[in-house]
Amino acid sequence: MALDRLKQAASHITGQVALPHPFDPLSELEIEAAVALVRKEHPDVFFNAVTLWEPRKAEMMAWIKAPDVAPRPHRVADVVCIGRGSKVFDANVSLTENRILSWELTEGVQPLITMEDLQIVETIVRKDPKVIEQCGIVGIPPEDMHKVYCDPWTIGYDERFGTNVRLQQALMYYRPHVDDSQYSYPLDFCPIYNSDTQEIIHIDVPPVRRPLNMAPPNNYHAAAIEKEGGFRNDLKPIHITQPEGVSFKMDGRYISWANWKLHVGFNYREGIVLSNITFNDKGTVRDTFWRLSLAEMVVPYGNPEHPHQRKHAFDLGEYGGGYMTNSLSLGCDCKGAIHYMDAAFVNRAGQASTIKNAICIHEEDAGILFKHTDFRDDSVTVTRARKLIISHIFTAANYEYCVYWSFHLDGTIQLEIKLTGILNTYAMLPGEDTKGWGTEVSAGGVNAHNHQHLFCVRIDPNIDGPNNTVFMVDAARGDGEVGSAENKYGNAFYAKKTKLSTPEQAATDYNGATSRTWDMANESKLNPYSKKPASYKLVSREVPELLPKPGGLVWKRAGFARHAVHVTKYDDAQIHPAGRHVPQTSGEPSQGIPAWIAANPTANLENTDVVLWHTFGLTHFPAPEDFPIMPAEPMSLLLRPRNFFTRNPCLDVPPSYCSVPSGVRQGNTLVDKISKLAFGEKETAAAQGKAPGEAACCSGGKFGAGV
Amino acid sequence: MALDRLKQAASHITGQVALPHPFDPLSELEIEAAVALVRKEHPDVFFNAVTLWEPRKAEMMAWIKAPDVAPRPHRVADVVCIGRGSKVFDANVSLTENRILSWELTEGVQPLITMEDLQIVETIVRKDPKVIEQCGIVGIPPEDMHKVYCDPWTIGYDERFGTNVRLQQALMYYRPHVDDSQYSYPLDFCPIYNSDTQEIIHIDVPPVRRPLNMAPPNNYHAAAIEKEGGFRNDLKPIHITQPEGVSFKMDGRYISWANWKLHVGFNYREGIVLSNITFNDKGTVRDTFWRLSLAEMVVPYGNPEHPHQRKHAFDLGEYGGGYMTNSLSLGCDCKGAIHYMDAAFVNRAGQASTIKNAICIHEEDAGILFKHTDFRDDSVTVTRARKLIISHIFTAANYEYCVYWSFHLDGTIQLEIKLTGILNTYAMLPGEDTKGWGTEVSAGGVNAHNHQHLFCVRIDPNIDGPNNTVFMVDAARGDGEVGSAENKYGNAFYAKKTKLSTPEQAATDYNGATSRTWDMANESKLNPYSKKPASYKLVSREVPELLPKPGGLVWKRAGFARHAVHVTKYDDAQIHPAGRHVPQTSGEPSQGIPAWIAANPTANLENTDVVLWHTFGLTHFPAPEDFPIMPAEPMSLLLRPRNFFTRNPCLDVPPSYCSVPSGVRQGNTLVDKISKLAFGEKETAAAQGKAPGEAACCSGGKFGAGV
Repeated sequence: MALDRLKQAASHITGQVALPHPFDPLSELEIEAAVALVRKEHPDVFFNAVTLWEPRKAEMMAWIKAPDVAPRPHRVADVVCIGRGSKVFDANVSLTENRILSWELTEGVQPLITMEDLQIVETIVRKDPKVIEQCGIVGIPPEDMHKVYCDPWTIGYDERFGTNVRLQQALMYYRPHVDDSQYSYPLDFCPIYNSDTQEIIHIDVPPVRRPLNMAPPNNYHAAAIEKEGGFRNDLKPIHITQPEGVSFKMDGRYISWANWKLHVGFNYREGIVLSNITFNDKGTVRDTFWRLSLAEMVVPYGNPEHPHQRKHAFDLGEYGGGYMTNSLSLGCDCKGAIHYMDAAFVNRAGQASTIKNAICIHEEDAGILFKHTDFRDDSVTVTRARKLIISHIFTAANYEYCVYWSFHLDGTIQLEIKLTGILNTYAMLPGEDTKGWGTEVSAGGVNAHNHQHLFCVRIDPNIDGPNNTVFMVDAARGDGEVGSAENKYGNAFYAKKTKLSTPEQAATDYNGATSRTWDMANESKLNPYSKKPASYKLVSREVPELLPKPGGLVWKRAGFARHAVHVTKYDDAQIHPAGRHVPQTSGEPSQGIPAWIAANPTANLENTDVVLWHTFGLTHFPAPEDFPIMPAEPMSLLLRPRNFFTRNPCLDVPPSYCSVPSGVRQGNTLVDKISKLAFGEKETAAAQGKAPGEAACCSGGKFGAGV
Repeated sequence: MALDRLKQAASHITGQVALPHPFDPLSELEIEAAVALVRKEHPDVFFNAVTLWEPRKAEMMAWIKAPDVAPRPHRVADVVCIGRGSKVFDANVSLTENRILSWELTEGVQPLITMEDLQIVETIVRKDPKVIEQCGIVGIPPEDMHKVYCDPWTIGYDERFGTNVRLQQALMYYRPHVDDSQYSYPLDFCPIYNSDTQEIIHIDVPPVRRPLNMAPPNNYHAAAIEKEGGFRNDLKPIHITQPEGVSFKMDGRYISWANWKLHVGFNYREGIVLSNITFNDKGTVRDTFWRLSLAEMVVPYGNPEHPHQRKHAFDLGEYGGGYMTNSLSLGCDCKGAIHYMDAAFVNRAGQASTIKNAICIHEEDAGILFKHTDFRDDSVTVTRARKLIISHIFTAANYEYCVYWSFHLDGTIQLEIKLTGILNTYAMLPGEDTKGWGTEVSAGGVNAHNHQHLFCVRIDPNIDGPNNTVFMVDAARGDGEVGSAENKYGNAFYAKKTKLSTPEQAATDYNGATSRTWDMANESKLNPYSKKPASYKLVSREVPELLPKPGGLVWKRAGFARHAVHVTKYDDAQIHPAGRHVPQTSGEPSQGIPAWIAANPTANLENTDVVLWHTFGLTHFPAPEDFPIMPAEPMSLLLRPRNFFTRNPCLDVPPSYCSVPSGVRQGNTLVDKISKLAFGEKETAAAQGKAPGEAACCSGGKFGAGV
């Protein structure tokens, strides 16, 4: 039934029957088909998630290799439902076979909090008499309760309430006017909300009370800026255009660009999922990564006073990076020629809904790709770089996370994350001692607590096939002492490689002093020149330690963040580093990566199908500059081909300019006729004492102007 | 005399008399005026450098504060001459007073190698009978000597030859054809050249000989790529234009952009020098940095076999980042609307010569500056970032260094360096064991040795005035153990600040685990909210250790690189981290920073005029991907305002889009009408089931489209 409807729908849009690719996210129709199948047997549940149950890797690899021979993987929905009494059901529903494959009551867990779950709390909080009482104590009269707001977080874990009841903690704020930023007006108490009964079951009240901030609002919206003197008017437009169109092609959700080809997926948890990433190496399509995604994150706050220990959001596992994704707006978030993709989700009632423009795909100029000048004669080759960027942005209450997956012409894959949005704040008395756990960032007492943003990227390497080995690589000094025969001048150094053979051995930390990196290598594919295995190297330099202490709450719950790198043997079921259901986990035992490793700490990781989990991020000690809205702070990691290619793989990119010593300007140069001199040719030419035409030319040494 | 001529020249160009600003580099006329003054008294010398002797800081600060009252700093040339017998003279010549202020014979030093010094060697090498003999041994007949090339490096330091004779080492190569890349054909021997007598005085020959590589050339020039199948034709142009012009203004060499104002200098050693950098904070012009420059670098190679220990180029101190600067070509190296500046130097004969377009100044779009969406109603503010980039590129024989100083709207200054160009290579027998000291990167035996690129940036802070203090800042766990009253859940962490009170205490290393940073603070200017001192924070994550061992040759010569950070009390004479004259220094004693610190290791650095020297960079273990030309590898550091402003300092940047909960779209939005959908509105709109007009709109939540 469902499949027939899908085929009809596809036919209606494209004029031909097109089955979804097995990697494609579920469409609205598929989501509703899955819901209908569940509803038939379980009419009383609410829907927490209906997402693609990704095809098993073995099955999928076989089908990709021989699509005409191997069976096409079925379309299966991965369903999470919530019944009365916070009961949680995990189900698989086959859309190919039109039936429920599995339906299980999962006890002692809470699935993530959806946007709908979040939205309800504020209404309840405003009506609750005990909350109204607390508001009165800090100085908000009952008639102003419509000015009271809350960011309703998961409760994290609170040992007083355990796991069985579905709870949220309401971080409380006030807005003098509906358009004012509430983060200048944090309130000092914290109600606990029961999602099942929709009521406030407790309020955490601090021993010392902090009345409502009485300072004027600290706003960033346009009216506020206009009032303060207005916007600057000296920034002239920068236009980025692609008059001949984009350089990438879409085939369904497969994108091809330069030598890259990959599938762009999306789900409610991880957001963007990139699969089956290949690079065309002079006609040979080579595997690089089977699957890349941002799989989990945790944002621990550093104030030990109760109940701030509960502030350590797992934004993907507890809320969903997909669910919180912004609808992107053309001309606001990216420039140039953009291709957008939508994202379809289920709502609580079982209806499909779509975030328009959830994923943004575009190209960007990226400066110089390579350049060399021969100092003898100024003959030069210079070639410009560009990158393909696949991005989404999600809003986690106060913070914005901008996620950019970039593909470079030289075979490098980059994950860049920009942090922006607003600091989480807490009430303080003006001049109160923050004890170093936070910073007063605005007038009247606004305390922004220290915190870390720790991201866990799941890297499923496929370096010339799935059988790979991970090495830790450190820059190391040679053995001989200064003055010895083998190291007389003391200058010997080399790349020390440590094979990570088991999961317990592979739990490794970052070392900035040795410029530590990790290689994912295919030991059976040696580079013909270097004789080293074909590899991709993880280069990541923003790798703080997990600051919450070993044995503490965050350390237990966020086991993935204990080390910069974990490696596990591939398992279809191991996708979520902190576990499938994260809210209200106690960390006893730790879910996800620590549990998987504990199950088989000495499993063989050599020359087999492995997954590398990398935790990186930054530690944020707030400052007034970050308020009332934070300038974007970027961090970035690279996956770089090393000994994978036999030479620079982007020599086929047309040069901007190329001249050679024999005096010939070579190639079909792409010389830029659009760029110009900032202050006009005439002025500059005159200042240089040259004719106007000459001043605007490419140099090109002795061998003519490159125009 | 000289000054009169200068005034005349200025008048001729601009129509009015304009004295050069005291920070301005010497003009061609000034250089020739200085040379003329020297020539009169010392007719027989050659010129190594004639550059601005920068005004003393106290004098300059006084004049900037009160230009009508304080005396205008004189124009003085800093001159280095070389006489017969490698005699070195250091001189100061006043262009204001038309006289030589000082003239000193400096014994036991060698000034840097100029481009002219480099160019001569190849000619001499080709004619030298012993070199011809060695070429014969590796397989090059005498008639092919015109196919022999060399990169003539400084000798670094070789204890057999000492310091008194001016020497170069010739790294030898071969080109089958003049257009072939020589780096595929390294030769195994190394002639030593005497610059004074212009002869080869020695040849270092390895114990095991390696004949000439017989593999076909590995080229990257256009003809070679065309022959191999040609360039790809699927990359469509990306146009970047500024139809209303640029947002910066030039007043002489002062540039104003957004809230920034600074002076752009340039010299033969450091290249770009940025001085008197201020930020207009809501009408108050505030000092940030007095002077920023890339001051030195060293590139140690990791092969301990003789004579490779000599490969550790100080590219700035031994060759000059200014002297080696590329003439930049419009449309090749940058895009958009560009302002170029030329750079004037002296040549050996005392004539002024100019590198056209040595400095490039342009703006670039920089993605999202800040964004926040209220999850309740999708009201959103999103503002785009841009940066002002001041850059130059220099070619150090095989390598290219691209130096980008970027100024961001949020008060951040970024130094980005991109490495490209070609690996230094050495001969190897095919299949020879590199012993881990290098990598075979191309056919036929081409060994690229391990190396580091370590850059030393000189940061002269002026955080609300010259009296500053430096703190080392580490993320640290709170004291209480898990379960204790003060840290029950173990989540306490804070920024641990260590005041660096003396030069010996301030010699500090990087710590990746604690996300170590360094604050330059004005302790007498506390932020009114945070009560923390106004600061700029050095955030730098590419900070490898100096791998050559303590006590070894490089460690001795490159003392600046022993620690990530050194702090010294300001001294007008302390500009060059490895000393004023670097070639052939033995490192006994170490010049520059170690000598300055040793002179007064316990000098007070608190609340006084200090300079922070930061060494950063990367360790490069070559791979075939880096050959025959290396895709650009970037590294970057930030200087970020912390507790310097009372709030986000870029709220005055007009938003791309702003809507508020009360339902009003605010502000004079700069909505981008140039960007478009990659595959046309129609297609996307149809796929989304929306009208064509609607699909291209800004989202704007419930509050209307942002067009």
